[in-house]
Amino acid sequence: MRIRVINPNSSLPMTRAIEATAREICADGTVIEACCPPGSPLSIEGHSDGVLAAHHMLKLVEESGPADGFVVACFDDTGVDGLRERVSGPVLGIGEAAMHAATMLACRFSILTTLKRSIPIIEDNASRYGLGARCKGVHAANIPVLALENENDDHAFSVIREAAAAVLEKDGSDALVLGCGGMTHFARRLGDTLGIPVVDGVSTAVKFVEALVGLGLKTGKTGGYAFPLSKTPPQTGKEHV
Amino acid sequence: MRIRVINPNSSLPMTRAIEATAREICADGTVIEACCPPGSPLSIEGHSDGVLAAHHMLKLVEESGPADGFVVACFDDTGVDGLRERVSGPVLGIGEAAMHAATMLACRFSILTTLKRSIPIIEDNASRYGLGARCKGVHAANIPVLALENENDDHAFSVIREAAAAVLEKDGSDALVLGCGGMTHFARRLGDTLGIPVVDGVSTAVKFVEALVGLGLKTGKTGGYAFPLSKTPPQTGKEHV
Amino acid sequence: MRIRVINPNSSLPMTRAIEATAREICADGTVIEACCPPGSPLSIEGHSDGVLAAHHMLKLVEESGPADGFVVACFDDTGVDGLRERVSGPVLGIGEAAMHAATMLACRFSILTTLKRSIPIIEDNASRYGLGARCKGVHAANIPVLALENENDDHAFSVIREAAAAVLEKDGSDALVLGCGGMTHFARRLGDTLGIPVVDGVSTAVKFVEALVGLGLKTGKTGGYAFPLSKTPPQTGKEHV
Amino acid sequence: MRIRVINPNSSLPMTRAIEATAREICADGTVIEACCPPGSPLSIEGHSDGVLAAHHMLKLVEESGPADGFVVACFDDTGVDGLRERVSGPVLGIGEAAMHAATMLACRFSILTTLKRSIPIIEDNASRYGLGARCKGVHAANIPVLALENENDDHAFSVIREAAAAVLEKDGSDALVLGCGGMTHFARRLGDTLGIPVVDGVSTAVKFVEALVGLGLKTGKTGGYAFPLSKTPPQTGKEHV
Amino acid sequence: MRIRVINPNSSLPMTRAIEATAREICADGTVIEACCPPGSPLSIEGHSDGVLAAHHMLKLVEESGPADGFVVACFDDTGVDGLRERVSGPVLGIGEAAMHAATMLACRFSILTTLKRSIPIIEDNASRYGLGARCKGVHAANIPVLALENENDDHAFSVIREAAAAVLEKDGSDALVLGCGGMTHFARRLGDTLGIPVVDGVSTAVKFVEALVGLGLKTGKTGGYAFPLSKTPPQTGKEHV
Amino acid sequence: MRIRVINPNSSLPMTRAIEATAREICADGTVIEACCPPGSPLSIEGHSDGVLAAHHMLKLVEESGPADGFVVACFDDTGVDGLRERVSGPVLGIGEAAMHAATMLACRFSILTTLKRSIPIIEDNASRYGLGARCKGVHAANIPVLALENENDDHAFSVIREAAAAVLEKDGSDALVLGCGGMTHFARRLGDTLGIPVVDGVSTAVKFVEALVGLGLKTGKTGGYAFPLSKTPPQTGKEHV
Repeated sequence: MRIRVINPNSSLPMTRAIEATAREICADGTVIEACCPPGSPLSIEGHSDGVLAAHHMLKLVEESGPADGFVVACFDDTGVDGLRERVSGPVLGIGEAAMHAATMLACRFSILTTLKRSIPIIEDNASRYGLGARCKGVHAANIPVLALENENDDHAFSVIREAAAAVLEKDGSDALVLGCGGMTHFARRLGDTLGIPVVDGVSTAVKFVEALVGLGLKTGKTGGYAFPLSKTPPQTGKEHV
Repeated sequence: MRIRVINPNSSLPMTRAIEATAREICADGTVIEACCPPGSPLSIEGHSDGVLAAHHMLKLVEESGPADGFVVACFDDTGVDGLRERVSGPVLGIGEAAMHAATMLACRFSILTTLKRSIPIIEDNASRYGLGARCKGVHAANIPVLALENENDDHAFSVIREAAAAVLEKDGSDALVLGCGGMTHFARRLGDTLGIPVVDGVSTAVKFVEALVGLGLKTGKTGGYAFPLSKTPPQTGKEHV
Repeated sequence: MRIRVINPNSSLPMTRAIEATAREICADGTVIEACCPPGSPLSIEGHSDGVLAAHHMLKLVEESGPADGFVVACFDDTGVDGLRERVSGPVLGIGEAAMHAATMLACRFSILTTLKRSIPIIEDNASRYGLGARCKGVHAANIPVLALENENDDHAFSVIREAAAAVLEKDGSDALVLGCGGMTHFARRLGDTLGIPVVDGVSTAVKFVEALVGLGLKTGKTGGYAFPLSKTPPQTGKEHV
Repeated sequence: MRIRVINPNSSLPMTRAIEATAREICADGTVIEACCPPGSPLSIEGHSDGVLAAHHMLKLVEESGPADGFVVACFDDTGVDGLRERVSGPVLGIGEAAMHAATMLACRFSILTTLKRSIPIIEDNASRYGLGARCKGVHAANIPVLALENENDDHAFSVIREAAAAVLEKDGSDALVLGCGGMTHFARRLGDTLGIPVVDGVSTAVKFVEALVGLGLKTGKTGGYAFPLSKTPPQTGKEHV
Repeated sequence: MRIRVINPNSSLPMTRAIEATAREICADGTVIEACCPPGSPLSIEGHSDGVLAAHHMLKLVEESGPADGFVVACFDDTGVDGLRERVSGPVLGIGEAAMHAATMLACRFSILTTLKRSIPIIEDNASRYGLGARCKGVHAANIPVLALENENDDHAFSVIREAAAAVLEKDGSDALVLGCGGMTHFARRLGDTLGIPVVDGVSTAVKFVEALVGLGLKTGKTGGYAFPLSKTPPQTGKEHV
Repeated sequence: MRIRVINPNSSLPMTRAIEATAREICADGTVIEACCPPGSPLSIEGHSDGVLAAHHMLKLVEESGPADGFVVACFDDTGVDGLRERVSGPVLGIGEAAMHAATMLACRFSILTTLKRSIPIIEDNASRYGLGARCKGVHAANIPVLALENENDDHAFSVIREAAAAVLEKDGSDALVLGCGGMTHFARRLGDTLGIPVVDGVSTAVKFVEALVGLGLKTGKTGGYAFPLSKTPPQTGKEHV
């Protein structure tokens, strides 16, 4: 089974960290192909970055070979719906995967992301997935995405650990979801420290896509995820009439 | 990895069909232990059957050895929350598993169950999981649970196929969820016929529990799924004061 | 009119307190039959206790004579739906009764229960009844159910009173719902102290069931509360295939 | 116990029918005072009628003596919130009472009202009470309110009965709520014919107010239903500046 | 274009302030006719005041000449639905207008009103408009409506400014909605001070009604806002049967 | 006032039709700058087209001069949130504008779009804006976007008119929203034919943006629509590790 894990931003260190997580967790027969689209923003911090990254991700997938399933490794689930139209295999965003998993393990969960500006994006996603009522809060650790790149950065870990403990106390949740693909290498350590399930989207999405591919299930093609329609010959052009 | 697949009703043929599905789909290293609680109702058709079955299921688990993960193979997800309190490993109902999976594959899904009386139970579950808005309808094929026991029953298959086609047309959904553990052996054939993802809860729950166990994730024990409290010495008795 | 008031746990002192409340509040012509199922957990603290208690309650009702209406005296509304299938007369849980009543008296209400682990159960019930938006918060006094058994326990009363005052301040609610059948004897005293409507589920459920029986209304039998279906001859058995 | 039953419109025949229903159903010790405000619209068919009727109802209550509880006998629950501010005793609209009762008796209910224009008003009320998800549909029999005044009108009954049967079939509901105070005298006959619980708001509201008064519960006065504030000396006047 | 701006209470100073705001913001061709109904409460503080004011407003509109569009200048949107039935042109409440506008400018907004008793009214309106999820909180500055009449009252401004700053900090909102028609003259100053969009309902409603009239759009007359039905000859009268 | 009206697809005829509508409806002092991004898909039919179009739209805005307000003329509201981050003036999608306006004019509305595949996108948007409950249905006329380009195409008009009439009958709505920027030139004719408010997003968005700019309101910059963060020096690159 071949799973393409796409980091929609263009940070190589983050892509490598995501790849390492995916390879560590995947089944023996699974081939992980991690990649990131050149030209995409270095990190996805807000809607505008997301628009650009989604576009570059679709272009990258167009140029790549086939795969059995796809993981979109940005917690905002940037471009997931668009990608579902383009391919047949299952596509899972890491935000989506982590939130669904959290509801299978705990009565209530909280999400810890990097920056305050991402909160409404994640809240809106949780609502759209229907998981808003189970999610007691989305919180920001106030740490930039790129500051998470180094797995051994004890300062970054300690910022996240303290923020996480405060969040659990405030929300009364019994599970924590890590709200950024760049936090993936801190997940296990954090779970051990906090004594609750800490759900990392990257590893969860890899395992859930493995599951869906193993079930022989593919993206439905008779509704909103049908393949894109081809257009009539172009007449395009910039128009300031 | 050892996964206990519990059919909460006491039908041996249905338990065997569930077991066959689980063993066919599970990973190489996974040991499936299928069982059903003696004394439980022969089928779960409504709330009252569910109450009895959940009780017998908890008793059965109490007497059984340990497992890494648990599947509750009734689409009503009977007793899932109670079981989560009793064990450490992940517990997944087949209704829950199938509905979550359907939202990963399609924009909208419909559920086809056996009897009309199960519709409000399933609708309420979908709402509680937050998936009610993605579920365009819960419908009954008007076929009793026990009539599904025989995998080669062409009449049962044809009743389900026709009901499924009508449901998809009416709801405009792009995926179908099979709303009864007893339909598990019809899933693949139905998917091939209908040309859309047909999600069977039994196989999906097995793969998702494998995924969660593989991730090292366990049920949260600091909130609503904490282990049951022990009681002070019994003073119980029937009281018609 | 004969109303069976079932305390689903097996605590005799709590059953007696519930019975006293019911008899004090009921109309002249009403006969209260209070009972609790032997073998049930001594208190219902979480989902697992609830599963066992619901089972014992259904067994108890099966063996008892007829009644015109039923009250299930556990704030979790344990087994209410199952019981509705088994009988014709109206069935009301005390959680349900109290929450509905609170919305008739105040713009917003808060619930004070015993233990933190019960919060998600009660929140989920409130949502299922549709009353989640009117309920500004479910809070735990952190006092075990069995510590409430003594009506004259000034310490227990004072713990509850202080917790209640804090809850009302925090939530800005104009009514309080007592979230445990064992708090029933504290209701009036608490209402006098706090100066707001304090709704006790036991007394409210008794009066509402009296009202429904008086109206000649019975549980609907054409949908999800239809009488349980009889099964074909048993083939049950424990199965570890 | 003295219950004031206010028909907010000014139809005497409807007021008499409502009074008859209330007196038939109330407890022995209850005194029913039925009244309707002169100057109010003859029937309440839409928002504008409701605004006028609510005003006349508040004026009428101001001039009347005290009562222990109040029923507002218009299914739109016209002016209920305003009345709650003015009095201490419990106030219940018949729409509200009937909808809450229906959820205690059935998994799903439907509402049958008189005119199409009332549908969004009732739907919005159901949503505000949180009961929108349990209510499978609000339907109009297309019969004017005033055509319901005669209890023995077989034509009116037959129009309602046929509409009701169609509604139950379409919605798959197991209870029917009568969506107009003028239908009150048809309730029992309709329930007998249809074989399901038919909930009439007038009788239900009377019994629920009896229950709330019997419980010693009053309207909360510390929040949104606090007594109206007195104003500083008037400077009012029509102003077309 | 002629827009009637109705202050449903009878405060002349507030009507003049509203008028000034409307005239300052309206387009060159727009004629603003500000008015308030004599006999209405001096301020609208709660449901009961709202019932009376809505009635007086409808009477005032009945006696006034035609207009192309209507603004109801009370943040509770008192009587808006009733007025929509009476006229053809668009009708907009200032609460409604401000909340819709806020969602066009910011991810999340908070509302600051005068008195605590208005909070549930405004929360319920936000829910009915569907904007409850975007509204992170409704808060009271604890200042009576009539204390806002003087535009140059620095104390009133400073109370509001401090309350607003606290609200934004607590809710994490990026826009503020002024929850009282009497705050209209403080809007711009407050926006400048706080550095976020401060939405005033009066000016927003005027501009949105201008927009709707300019679009040639009128209130729909085939559903819930159809013109009121005429009644059969009156038989009304006060009835204490 | 300068309003940039961006058609996110690259169809020149559609851009011209949108421009004509915008210029016809705008105020005297308003300058309309209509444009479409070269390289964008010829039409936006689904998520994938939307991702590409949003990217091209952001690039186009980056290269264009300043404007006081922005209209995104695709009913899917493609890239609206991203654009809000990039500019200071108000940004409005035509879907959003039309849905908000419809709730100001009617109790319930329906949406008629072009293709079935767009239904879940529009339904999700309606939910996110909170307007899902007021929207009784999203329906497809089954006509491709590009077939709408010719204003005088009587066949296209007649397909839409018949679909619209059927939709209103089925949903019981009292307003219709045109669910595609390409339908803009049919709006008035359709409203005249159907006798209900027909809301066109293009003209409505232009008027609402005029209103917001006239009010001096800008996009909030302290939360989810803050200006994009600049990134550290690029290290990007395609990575198939």
